[in-house]
Amino acid sequence: MTHIYNDPRGFKEDMIEGFVRAHRDRVRRVPNASAVMSSRAPVKGKVALIIGGGSGHYPAFCGLVGEGLADAAVIGDIFTSPSAEQVYRCTKAVEGGAGVVYSFGNYSGDVMHFGLAEMRCESEGIDVRTVLVTDDVASAPPEQREDRRGIAGDLYVFKVAGASAHRGDPLDEVERLARKANDHTRTVGVAFGGCTLPGKSEPLFRVDPGRMEFGLGIHGEPGVSTSELLPAPELARLLVGKLLEEAPPDADGTVALMLNGLGSTKYEELFVLYRYVSELVERAGLRIHHPLVGEYVTSLDMAGCSLTFLWLDEELRELHDAPARTPAMIWEVKR
Amino acid sequence: MTHIYNDPRGFKEDMIEGFVRAHRDRVRRVPNASAVMSSRAPVKGKVALIIGGGSGHYPAFCGLVGEGLADAAVIGDIFTSPSAEQVYRCTKAVEGGAGVVYSFGNYSGDVMHFGLAEMRCESEGIDVRTVLVTDDVASAPPEQREDRRGIAGDLYVFKVAGASAHRGDPLDEVERLARKANDHTRTVGVAFGGCTLPGKSEPLFRVDPGRMEFGLGIHGEPGVSTSELLPAPELARLLVGKLLEEAPPDADGTVALMLNGLGSTKYEELFVLYRYVSELVERAGLRIHHPLVGEYVTSLDMAGCSLTFLWLDEELRELHDAPARTPAMIWEVKR
Repeated sequence: MTHIYNDPRGFKEDMIEGFVRAHRDRVRRVPNASAVMSSRAPVKGKVALIIGGGSGHYPAFCGLVGEGLADAAVIGDIFTSPSAEQVYRCTKAVEGGAGVVYSFGNYSGDVMHFGLAEMRCESEGIDVRTVLVTDDVASAPPEQREDRRGIAGDLYVFKVAGASAHRGDPLDEVERLARKANDHTRTVGVAFGGCTLPGKSEPLFRVDPGRMEFGLGIHGEPGVSTSELLPAPELARLLVGKLLEEAPPDADGTVALMLNGLGSTKYEELFVLYRYVSELVERAGLRIHHPLVGEYVTSLDMAGCSLTFLWLDEELRELHDAPARTPAMIWEVKR
Repeated sequence: MTHIYNDPRGFKEDMIEGFVRAHRDRVRRVPNASAVMSSRAPVKGKVALIIGGGSGHYPAFCGLVGEGLADAAVIGDIFTSPSAEQVYRCTKAVEGGAGVVYSFGNYSGDVMHFGLAEMRCESEGIDVRTVLVTDDVASAPPEQREDRRGIAGDLYVFKVAGASAHRGDPLDEVERLARKANDHTRTVGVAFGGCTLPGKSEPLFRVDPGRMEFGLGIHGEPGVSTSELLPAPELARLLVGKLLEEAPPDADGTVALMLNGLGSTKYEELFVLYRYVSELVERAGLRIHHPLVGEYVTSLDMAGCSLTFLWLDEELRELHDAPARTPAMIWEVKR
């Protein structure tokens, strides 16, 4: 349940204002837009990475703006795409003459609004490429990967694209690497309970006690099937098993791994699950690189978790490991 | 509600095992103890800072172990003090010959068990000092500060003590500065809903819809009074007002500020509240230094939040600003 708000219609504006006040050292507001940008942007001659989507997913998306990651995030109302006008204004504010990559989860509203902004920017001579994140294995079969939703895997695609842009790669290369990161990223999730929008008293969906939903969405969409609530070892087997089914053919046996809490599933629970997940992954002969266990792409106070693999190779690993500094994370990989 | 566990009696052990597996680069398990230590500990000639308490408060306590912060954390079952034996074993593993500071929130169980361990260590020639955290303004009147509980203010006391020990201060000085940090730290909190222990289906307490509890505890204790659920601006006024009532006489007008989520109160809500909190604090003529808005001392999936001020002066500010690296946070203060 969401308890803290003033006027629910002003929730997003209050949130952006508070966020920028809390992180003045790293970000500022894009003038006249529901968007935040790195305090270093625009950087002349650098490809700009713009991410975004509805709010309610912190640290996605505004928490991921900063050096080595995104140049800006366009922020919609809760679980609602930002408008094309907002995306356009943000693009004008942060592009540095070397082109722009838009990256966001594959949802129809975002595809439409970012698409309209892309057309408008192209007509003004700004080269924009769009890379959709499609990591959610539960939302469509493997032969229809392009129809899948984007969920927690967003973070890895943004990280790779942001590192590529930060080191000075040209637009074609940033786009290629972002697409490759998405091709190597898979996520599967489960939900134990729905979230409640500000000003509402009923959750967007309910899960019966003792049950869980497989294949959650991050906008209050229920799962694609329900089952008994599983003890941690069996839950780990379900999640790891699903991801192992889709190992990319060129994977070299090392995965960056994210065990993500959706909101009210807490760190302690995630660590319990990680014990069993990491044992299974290692038993399958994979090396785990820089595991992330915590909240990375949330859904308000939803109960649930997701497991993501980024299947690494040498070029993805270099970009994954590059440092980044944003309000939500200081990314440092020990070698 | 806690959904992920295997055998509820093994929750703590599963959690510690998963935590250490996720953060092998920074921490390791203390042999034969429910405790984790920095991978650099013991450091010969350095005062060791040992923190701890029940689990269920992540990132407190094990997430705060690392360079510049705690040398080790002793971990009890959920909301339950670790035993004297565990504290003793941990102390033997991490002390480096320059003495030890124990710091933890003021709860009778922790006071007893850490106290017994202190006596045993002293009898073996290890100089141990104990600094209780007593930041919770709702739990006793100002003239009985030593009876107050420790809640989110833990973090600031640990941070100051850890930085003092890290720079090589002798035991008397680390103790003095930790006590001073506690004297300058105040927290006030509210709860909107209780948390549920692993394996249980009922929360430890309930808050009626549309109500809130003032003066929460972090172990499922309900507040000291109830009121209507307040809109964000009024909630900010309540929290800031309570803290301003207790400004220390030697405060120089700058506060480090932490707006802490208890578990299922999410970042977006905290940013909404921070907008109003920061406006009020600035209007009161105070400067906010390095605000923290997020989850720092939690209570499983409890709904609620707390506001903490660390009233700074030059010596506290230097220690507050010193860098630290732990599993839960990389502490970098821009100047």
